[in-house]
Amino acid sequence: MRDVSIAGVGSTSFGKLEDYDIVALATEACRAALADSGIPRERVQALYIGNFIGERIADQGVLAPIVARRLGLDGIPATKVEAACASGGIALRHGYLLVAAEIHGVVLVAGVEKMSSVPTGDVTAALSTAGDESIEMRTGLTFPGAFAMIMQAHMARYGTSREQIASVSIKNHGNGATNPKAQFQKPTDMDEVLSSRFVAEPLRLFDCPPISDGSAAAVVCTAEIAREFSDHGVRILGSGQGSGPTALTGMDDLTTFPATVRAADEAFTQAGMGPADVDVAEVHDCFTIAEIVATEDLGLVPRGAGGQAVAAGETALDGRLPVNPSGGLIAKGHPVGASGVGQMYELVQQLRGTAANQVAKADIGLAHNLGGSGAAATVHVLARD
Amino acid sequence: MRDVSIAGVGSTSFGKLEDYDIVALATEACRAALADSGIPRERVQALYIGNFIGERIADQGVLAPIVARRLGLDGIPATKVEAACASGGIALRHGYLLVAAEIHGVVLVAGVEKMSSVPTGDVTAALSTAGDESIEMRTGLTFPGAFAMIMQAHMARYGTSREQIASVSIKNHGNGATNPKAQFQKPTDMDEVLSSRFVAEPLRLFDCPPISDGSAAAVVCTAEIAREFSDHGVRILGSGQGSGPTALTGMDDLTTFPATVRAADEAFTQAGMGPADVDVAEVHDCFTIAEIVATEDLGLVPRGAGGQAVAAGETALDGRLPVNPSGGLIAKGHPVGASGVGQMYELVQQLRGTAANQVAKADIGLAHNLGGSGAAATVHVLARD
Repeated sequence: MRDVSIAGVGSTSFGKLEDYDIVALATEACRAALADSGIPRERVQALYIGNFIGERIADQGVLAPIVARRLGLDGIPATKVEAACASGGIALRHGYLLVAAEIHGVVLVAGVEKMSSVPTGDVTAALSTAGDESIEMRTGLTFPGAFAMIMQAHMARYGTSREQIASVSIKNHGNGATNPKAQFQKPTDMDEVLSSRFVAEPLRLFDCPPISDGSAAAVVCTAEIAREFSDHGVRILGSGQGSGPTALTGMDDLTTFPATVRAADEAFTQAGMGPADVDVAEVHDCFTIAEIVATEDLGLVPRGAGGQAVAAGETALDGRLPVNPSGGLIAKGHPVGASGVGQMYELVQQLRGTAANQVAKADIGLAHNLGGSGAAATVHVLARD
Repeated sequence: MRDVSIAGVGSTSFGKLEDYDIVALATEACRAALADSGIPRERVQALYIGNFIGERIADQGVLAPIVARRLGLDGIPATKVEAACASGGIALRHGYLLVAAEIHGVVLVAGVEKMSSVPTGDVTAALSTAGDESIEMRTGLTFPGAFAMIMQAHMARYGTSREQIASVSIKNHGNGATNPKAQFQKPTDMDEVLSSRFVAEPLRLFDCPPISDGSAAAVVCTAEIAREFSDHGVRILGSGQGSGPTALTGMDDLTTFPATVRAADEAFTQAGMGPADVDVAEVHDCFTIAEIVATEDLGLVPRGAGGQAVAAGETALDGRLPVNPSGGLIAKGHPVGASGVGQMYELVQQLRGTAANQVAKADIGLAHNLGGSGAAATVHVLARD
């Protein structure tokens, strides 16, 4: 396994982007990533795109070859990968694996989703395909419903307060307010979060991410090639991917996702590091409670202490361990297939020292991407090169 | 790169399988492949599933983790890959790549599609997402329309006759008639093919594959592990994946798919062989004309001579080079994401000497899977171990 770097990143803004179709979104992010890397496009040997529901709500399958063609890269193997909301992290992991294993020297990776062009009900129905249809979703469960139950379970088991959970929203909206790529650029407060309407009690509107369009991309290559073309490469020290129970009914404990634990264990082992080494993290806050569970599953805070940690400011921009400095999925937006690669965009900027919301110490970064209600997860550990 | 084998294969029947949902299809094929391999499921380190439109017409995304969970394999990385009709070949290729590169020792690969449970119009619309929506499909082009134009072009350029093209249907329906897994088990003749109704002139109903449910699976592992558990492993000598123009409007020549040519070149180079070494081939006959183009692009017959070759019986079961002994997509059925892995099921049986339609000489087999109107292709070269 040879050393692998992210040589360049690119991202569209996230939000309701009426002028872009799904192909234009991915193409723009890829072009930006290639330009940022300095690597000529002729060097790209494969393309991976993370995308969840493009065939269903954007009427576009076979997305990777189409984006390759638009970029003048047709000929190369071009593959979409999918595991619901973890699709982007999985795309990045495939770039990493194929470069590390000496299959390719340079792999272009993108994540993309176009969600705003169909009615909200259609989006909700499409998102529900991230759950186990035959076991659970046909009963009418939606993802806000699932995470409302997870929220209840965490409150019951660990005494986590509604206010602590709301602190995630306040923190992430605060971070989004100063991130020019974020969908929501306005801070919020406890009153606004806790008086926003119920989506699935006790989960409220401000506990949720928006429906978003967007794409992010990364050029993954050998550390050697990255250094040849620029001095701002970021190393991928570890990559983990795991799966887990695919329905709440199969979980022994609603307050932990085994897929995250497995992916983190793999990534940390490979990196030769542990949670204490992480300076900054982008984690999968598809709902406020998901960020709390993620920080616990990743070992960034003690089990059950995620609510206290965020309420005490430990995960704030100026805290002990900033989490979701980008604003996370809740404020930056959640174009599903793009989110895992969007995390890389943020972390690469953080590790370079060029982020919009730059944290003080950023030597080691961690990205955590989750699919379904814990069906799949990826974790990546990154370092300055 | 270490030696890689297919240790076991499994397949459902292809057809209208009302008792199966998409997860049950994939699970059955995977269980059969694992049993055939003799390898205990605990040895499986990753799962790849090729699937095209599960999120859209089977209401099921995050399919790979769900199938992993049903198989008692949750924990392992589980990923869906997609490039329209080439999804299955791409899934197999990822099993190959990750074993060859020493990332994993045993990878379970499946392809699956569940198409018969929604109205035909919904299937047609979903299949159209395999074309470039913004450039071509929104004008109303469908895949039968695209391949009708390709048929016209081949007839005009090479003097290929309508009867020669119909010979593909006659041959493949004949093969399907004696394949117990095939959707259509009835021979046809020139009169029936050429009097069947037009779908898109000059392409007729018997030039087309049916709408199918089905799944096929393969256990891909090191040659060493395969030999440890059975004596019927089949070696993967070469694997190629390419992309190409994603709309007819981008093709310089409608009678050749550059993606196939690239994938074949990669696979043959890796195998250290050429087309003349192939004894038996399963190629992507999504329409009759597609088989003719494929045999030419793969170098199995001279350019422009594909029509003559099939009409002369060269590609018949007892011909010089049997093509689609399984009945191909046209007669065996075309559950889109499954087709590429279904080809492996057939070839592994052929190379073992246990196929329903066993050909006389089967030392080297070739599988060719195509996505969209040439957007993506995979080629695999297999040999007896």
